Amino acid sequence: MSTVAEVETAQPTPADQPGIREGAFGNARSLACRECGNEVELGPHYACPECFGPLEVSYDFPVVTREEIEAGPRNIWRYKALLPVPDDIEQSPNMEPGFTRLLQARNLGRELGLEKLWVKDDSTNPTNSFKDRVVACALSAATEFHSKVFACPSTGNLANAVAAAGARAGIKTVVFIPSNLEKPKQVNSAVYTDSLVAVNGNYDDVNKLASEIAGEEDGWAFVNVNVRPFYAEGSKTLGYEIAEQLGWRLPDQVVIPVASGSQLTKVHKAFGELVRLGLVEDKPVKIFGAQATGCSPVSTAYKAEVDAIRPVKPDTIAKSLAIGNPADGIYVLDICRSTGGAVEDITDDEVREGILLLARHEGIFTETAGGTTVGVLKKLVETGQLDPTLETVVINTGMGLKTLDAVSDQVGPAATIDASYAAFTATGIA
Amino acid sequence: MSTVAEVETAQPTPADQPGIREGAFGNARSLACRECGNEVELGPHYACPECFGPLEVSYDFPVVTREEIEAGPRNIWRYKALLPVPDDIEQSPNMEPGFTRLLQARNLGRELGLEKLWVKDDSTNPTNSFKDRVVACALSAATEFHSKVFACPSTGNLANAVAAAGARAGIKTVVFIPSNLEKPKQVNSAVYTDSLVAVNGNYDDVNKLASEIAGEEDGWAFVNVNVRPFYAEGSKTLGYEIAEQLGWRLPDQVVIPVASGSQLTKVHKAFGELVRLGLVEDKPVKIFGAQATGCSPVSTAYKAEVDAIRPVKPDTIAKSLAIGNPADGIYVLDICRSTGGAVEDITDDEVREGILLLARHEGIFTETAGGTTVGVLKKLVETGQLDPTLETVVINTGMGLKTLDAVSDQVGPAATIDASYAAFTATGIA
Repeated sequence: MSTVAEVETAQPTPADQPGIREGAFGNARSLACRECGNEVELGPHYACPECFGPLEVSYDFPVVTREEIEAGPRNIWRYKALLPVPDDIEQSPNMEPGFTRLLQARNLGRELGLEKLWVKDDSTNPTNSFKDRVVACALSAATEFHSKVFACPSTGNLANAVAAAGARAGIKTVVFIPSNLEKPKQVNSAVYTDSLVAVNGNYDDVNKLASEIAGEEDGWAFVNVNVRPFYAEGSKTLGYEIAEQLGWRLPDQVVIPVASGSQLTKVHKAFGELVRLGLVEDKPVKIFGAQATGCSPVSTAYKAEVDAIRPVKPDTIAKSLAIGNPADGIYVLDICRSTGGAVEDITDDEVREGILLLARHEGIFTETAGGTTVGVLKKLVETGQLDPTLETVVINTGMGLKTLDAVSDQVGPAATIDASYAAFTATGIA
Repeated sequence: MSTVAEVETAQPTPADQPGIREGAFGNARSLACRECGNEVELGPHYACPECFGPLEVSYDFPVVTREEIEAGPRNIWRYKALLPVPDDIEQSPNMEPGFTRLLQARNLGRELGLEKLWVKDDSTNPTNSFKDRVVACALSAATEFHSKVFACPSTGNLANAVAAAGARAGIKTVVFIPSNLEKPKQVNSAVYTDSLVAVNGNYDDVNKLASEIAGEEDGWAFVNVNVRPFYAEGSKTLGYEIAEQLGWRLPDQVVIPVASGSQLTKVHKAFGELVRLGLVEDKPVKIFGAQATGCSPVSTAYKAEVDAIRPVKPDTIAKSLAIGNPADGIYVLDICRSTGGAVEDITDDEVREGILLLARHEGIFTETAGGTTVGVLKKLVETGQLDPTLETVVINTGMGLKTLDAVSDQVGPAATIDASYAAFTATGIA
C-alpha cells in the first residue's frame, strides 16, 4: 500500500486543533454537511454549524488498486485508504474486525425461491456483530483526538464492541444501555468494563442522555454522537467486502437491517465509491431495508409514500433495531426508492421464524436483527418486491447467543434419555 | 494450488470400498496405528485391528510452498494439501472455518509479566469455537463415505459445530449432550437440528453411548468416534495458522487446553510437519497443557511423574474440558515432557479470574475453557514453569456467551440511573 501512503493529498493538518498529527485521518479531506454541502475541518464535530444537518466524511482519494487492497491485512484495514484513519492504523491495538465470511446460501435460497443468494455473515466479528467495524474507526478518531473516555449509548451490540475495543486499546470506557436490555448483552459488556451504566428508559432516552453528557464533559468520545461521522464510515467496509468477495463486482440486490439507517446508507456509499475509483463496474443495485413491525418508522413512511419519518415508541424483540427516531431514516427512504428497492417490516413471530430459517438451512445462528433481515427477505420475495432471479445479498449483522430468549422456548432437546442403546432406540430417532 | 492437485502420490483408491472416489482424502496415504505403526487403508476406522491402538492419518505430502498456501482461501482450506480432504473441498457447502485472529496481547502480557504474548483467538469461528475446524474435516470424510447421519457426543461446542455444519451441508444430524449442559449451548445446537438428544450422565457416559450406537447403526458418522482420525486432523490447522501468522516461524512456547488431549497433540504434529516440509525453520517449542483442577487427570499424572492416566469424575465449571478419561492423555504427557513444557491445573475461581483477565486486558470474552488456559498461563509464569522472556502463544478455543453463568454473578452494571445528566453525575463515574 506504499503508493497510498506516499501520495500527497490536499488534506491539511487541522490548523486550530493543536496536537492533531498530520495524516491523522488518512485521505479524509473534511466533514461535509449532508444537507447543505458546507464543509468544516476534520474534528469531533457532527452537526453542520450552518444548518445543523449531519456531517459526513469526504475524501481526496488517491489511486487505489485491487492489488493494493488484496495485499492488505485480512480485516477492515485492507481498506484503510478509503477510511478516515491514519496509514499506521494497524500498529494501534485494535480488534482487527471484518473480512467476515460471504457464504453462498443454496439451501436458504432454494427454500425462499431465490436463484442466487449470499449471506454476508458479520456474526463472526470479534464481539459478534458488525459494530466492531464502526467502533474500530471511532477508536481511531478518539485516539487522534486524544480523548480520555471512549463511550456510547447502545442497544447492546455497540456497548459490547466499545467496551471490548476500549479494553484492548487501554482507554477508559463508559457504556450506557437501556436497563431492560437482554442479560447476555449486559454481561457481554460488563466483562470488559467496570463502567456499564444501565438507564431507565428506551434507547432514544439513553441516546438523549449521551448527547447531553457529550455536550457537558470534555474529552469524551461518544462513538455514535460526537465522533459519529468517523464511526459511521466503518460500515462502508461491509459494502467493500461484499464487492471484493464476489470477485470485484456488485450484486443486484442487497437486504440490510435498518436501526438508525446508517449502515444501509454507508453500504450504498461504499458501492458508489468503488465504482468511482474504478474498482468495480457500474451497475444498478437495488437496496432494501428491513425493520421489525414493532419499530418500523422508516417502513411506515416508505409504504405511506411520505418523506418524513414519524418517531415511534419501539415494541419489538428486535432490540438492536429498536431505534424509534432513526437519524438516517430519510436517507434510507431516498436510497431505497431511488435504487428500485423497498423498505419492509415483519412481526416478532416472523423474526423468530427468520432466525430458525437461517439456522436450519445455513448453519448460522443469528440474533433478532438477522432474523428480521431474513424474514423481510422472505416477505419481499413473497410479495414480489424483490426479483428472485437476481443475485441477492442479505446481511447478517449479529449473533444468536446474544438474544437467546427469542428462540429458547421454541427449540430444545428432542428427547432426554438414559445412557443406554435401548433408551436411544426407543426415541425412534435412529 | 494446481501443483498440489496434480502431483501423483502413492495414495490408491481404497480397493475394498466401492463408491469411494479417487482423491477423496487428498494426500492422505493410510491410517497408521499410533502404538504399533500398523497401517490400514483409509476408511471409517479408528482402532488398530492388530493392537486396538488409535489410528492416525499418515500422508505422502507433495512439495507445498508458502506461496501456494498464501494464495488459498482465508479459511482452513488454504492448508488442504496437508489435510485428509479432496482437492475440490471448497466446492462442498461447509462452514469455511479458521484463519482466525492471532493478536499480540501487550496488555495481558504486561499484567502477567510476559515479554511477548500472543492470543490465537478461535472464538470467532463460525459457531464460536475451534470445533468448527475438526468438524469441517469430519464432514468431508462423512461425505466421502456417503454417511447418512452426521453425529457426535459432545460437551456442547462440538454439538453446536456438528449441528450447524450438517444444516449447511444438508445432511441429517443427531447430537448427544449431557442433560446438565449449559442452556445456551443446548439452544445453540437445537436451533440447527431437530435431533438434539440429552443424555442423563456426564460426557464419558454420553461418549460410551455414542460408541455403542456407532457400532450398531450403519451409515452413522460420529465425528469423534468412527471418523475420529479424519476429524482430529482439523486441529492441525491451529498450528499451521499460528506459524503462518507469525510470519512463517514457530513460537517458543504454546499453552493449550486439554480435554481429550487431541488438540494439543495435533498442534505439535502440525509444527513438526511444517518443519519437515521446509515451511518453517526447526526450533524447540515448549508445549504446555491446561486443565481445570476439577477434571485434571493429565495434570495429576504429570505432577506425579507417572505415565498412566487415572480417569476421574469431572467436577468443574469448565464443562468443555470435562473429559474424565482423555483418549490422548498419554500423548499429551509425552509431548509436554519431551518438549520441556508442563501440564498444570487451576481451580474454578481461577478459571473465572482467567476469563476476566482476558476480557479486561484484550477485549476477548472467552468461555471457561479459555479462562482455564489463561489462568494456567498465569500460574505457569508465577511458578516459574514457563519462561516469561520467551515468545508465547496462548490458544483461546471458545466464546464467553456460551458459559455466561460462569461470570454473570461477578460483573454487571456499575449503576442503574434515570435518564438525566444529574443522575449520571451523581454516580461519580464522570
